[in-house]
Amino acid sequence: MKTQVAIIGAGPSGLLLGQLLAKQGIDNVIIERVSGDYILGRIRAGVLEQGMADLLREAGVGERMDREGQVHKGVELAFNNKRVNIELEELTGGNTVMVYGQTEVTRDLMEARAEKGLTTYYESSNVVLHDVKSASPYVTFEQDGKEHRLDCDYIAGCDGFHGVSRQTIPESSRKEFERVYPFGWLGILSDTPPVNDELIYCKTDRGFAMTSMRSATRSRYYIQVPLTDKVEDWSDDDFWTELKHRLPDDVAERLVTGPSIEKSIAPLRSFVCEPMQYGNLFLVGDAAHIVPPTGAKGLNLAASDVATLNKIMTRVYKEGDKECINQYSDICLRRVWHGERFSWWMTNMLHDFSGEGSKDAETHERFMSSELNFYTDTEEGRRVIAMQYVGLPYEDLK
Amino acid sequence: MKTQVAIIGAGPSGLLLGQLLAKQGIDNVIIERVSGDYILGRIRAGVLEQGMADLLREAGVGERMDREGQVHKGVELAFNNKRVNIELEELTGGNTVMVYGQTEVTRDLMEARAEKGLTTYYESSNVVLHDVKSASPYVTFEQDGKEHRLDCDYIAGCDGFHGVSRQTIPESSRKEFERVYPFGWLGILSDTPPVNDELIYCKTDRGFAMTSMRSATRSRYYIQVPLTDKVEDWSDDDFWTELKHRLPDDVAERLVTGPSIEKSIAPLRSFVCEPMQYGNLFLVGDAAHIVPPTGAKGLNLAASDVATLNKIMTRVYKEGDKECINQYSDICLRRVWHGERFSWWMTNMLHDFSGEGSKDAETHERFMSSELNFYTDTEEGRRVIAMQYVGLPYEDLK
Repeated sequence: MKTQVAIIGAGPSGLLLGQLLAKQGIDNVIIERVSGDYILGRIRAGVLEQGMADLLREAGVGERMDREGQVHKGVELAFNNKRVNIELEELTGGNTVMVYGQTEVTRDLMEARAEKGLTTYYESSNVVLHDVKSASPYVTFEQDGKEHRLDCDYIAGCDGFHGVSRQTIPESSRKEFERVYPFGWLGILSDTPPVNDELIYCKTDRGFAMTSMRSATRSRYYIQVPLTDKVEDWSDDDFWTELKHRLPDDVAERLVTGPSIEKSIAPLRSFVCEPMQYGNLFLVGDAAHIVPPTGAKGLNLAASDVATLNKIMTRVYKEGDKECINQYSDICLRRVWHGERFSWWMTNMLHDFSGEGSKDAETHERFMSSELNFYTDTEEGRRVIAMQYVGLPYEDLK
Repeated sequence: MKTQVAIIGAGPSGLLLGQLLAKQGIDNVIIERVSGDYILGRIRAGVLEQGMADLLREAGVGERMDREGQVHKGVELAFNNKRVNIELEELTGGNTVMVYGQTEVTRDLMEARAEKGLTTYYESSNVVLHDVKSASPYVTFEQDGKEHRLDCDYIAGCDGFHGVSRQTIPESSRKEFERVYPFGWLGILSDTPPVNDELIYCKTDRGFAMTSMRSATRSRYYIQVPLTDKVEDWSDDDFWTELKHRLPDDVAERLVTGPSIEKSIAPLRSFVCEPMQYGNLFLVGDAAHIVPPTGAKGLNLAASDVATLNKIMTRVYKEGDKECINQYSDICLRRVWHGERFSWWMTNMLHDFSGEGSKDAETHERFMSSELNFYTDTEEGRRVIAMQYVGLPYEDLK
């Protein structure tokens, strides 16, 4: 079996890349470890930058998003009994974000891929990447007890943080950067109307909280919890009670509660692998980088990797320029580090770090309070938040 | 002996406060541990925010500054073979900074005080503050072996980080915040023409460097050194050689070197004492807060404390409103923490922290590189640097 680009992973990055490549006439096959239903069962992010929304439209899968997604022109920060509206559209000269769940994006992409009749191997095990530094890399895997070999020109590693793609790069040829945070996010999904039209990021003495949504009838809420907490420790009632304590009073008053349809605790992590390319293997999205969810950059950074790799593959196959593949890592990493920094910064400003127990913790808390005041009290500061929240521009190839 | 406001310390804060109070007809006496000549021998900062320059003019001591000082409309950041001009005047809608040495400010203030015939006790020892929580505080001290007692209404503690004023506040009534940095600044003063019209802050793989000046014929240069270095380890030649390595090539080429007329190593520290008021004692400037020199905020934060205390004392004596003194600490601390955060941030972005050897150091360095790129590549970012560099506005009393 042969293709031009082997894509490892059928999450939104792999699917979006496959769709964009196919549109350029570039043949691709996706190999995925789990089933499509399993992927659609994962609850993930829901805020799309303008650049990602445009990329989905370019890929021909923007129709339902534009019909059902909610365009958000602002985002709120609440702290010290204050609420500050970061007016995204006004501060950035017209940019907004789209609230549309990652699950929906994935569903739209899966349907589009099925319609086009493009090949996807779900529930593949023992996926191994071979000869990625050679001109003839290939992938072996098993499906239903049968062994397969996929020959290709290039491999896109879209298989997430725990995938095999990054591990295929010898340790001596990559460097990993990491910051682990002393807390996690306990999240609840519920079929209740969202408490607020816009997202609210809340900093409180009890820790961070966030109100979010997936649609007009489905809400997503989060609270900061110690890493030692387990999801079994938190009944739905416990969650709603604690959330109310952390919301501004008028918001808490109108909160509609209901049974959770999903409840989980996610640790927070900043992680980057450099470089993002090794021979003819390209790491895309979570395979190369993880951000804490504060600021909603994870999926969006994956999308900008996809955009860059699509441009590169298009040039390779349309113009025969194979040298341009060496631009991939530098172009991606510049934007990735900006997103990493923004997510780390928002996390630092909005969370309670006293659990870390460091000597400097109290001083750091004062710095962060001043930071939050400065960046919300001044228009110059709000502009800096807004332009990063809607997403920095995608960089073109040289 | 009796006065209205006893001022401890004849550095620029104490002298400026004395001058402003006297202008409002408020009687004041300064008590200083060392001699006037000793104070004038200390080499300190040289960049005055617009607000401080205006305050000196208000105090009637701006004439020589306006004649001899240099108005700087921009400041440069150099890194990665790039030089970025932060156009202060353009980005802030007209604000600039004044380069005029702290020594000169102090000299002008001393002369003005002498002209007005205001009392200053230099070389006073055993300074003790008494009954600062009562309505009748007083200060005792010795001069030339003679004991003195100064009764007063209020005491302004302008006696610096090591002074007695802060120590007078019981430990249970104050909280101290601190961040110590794993390096110091080795500084040289020389009678050579400055290498550049504007200040340059340089980030390099060898560590931070800075080019500064006091006048058209007197330069001030700094390089980051490990805390373990001693000034004796550095000959003038060693200094100039290392400085050249850290300057942009074209700047290094035109550097004029010469014998140092002062050479010293200063540690870097962030420090804040809260609150800044205890009964009728007010802490002013370094007595309450220290910043690392990156960003030139130390003297300027002292000036805004002085401005606030002057407004308060004026209201107390003109309007008989004694309650307003309770506003002092909050008003000062808001601006102090902004200055602390800005200095900490500039220090973090521009210095090499690898000496700290922390596990996170490499990740932090990547965050800081991204920060420096973002805040210099975008106009929004440069605006945020500029508005803080020229100084945030002074807050009025309620």
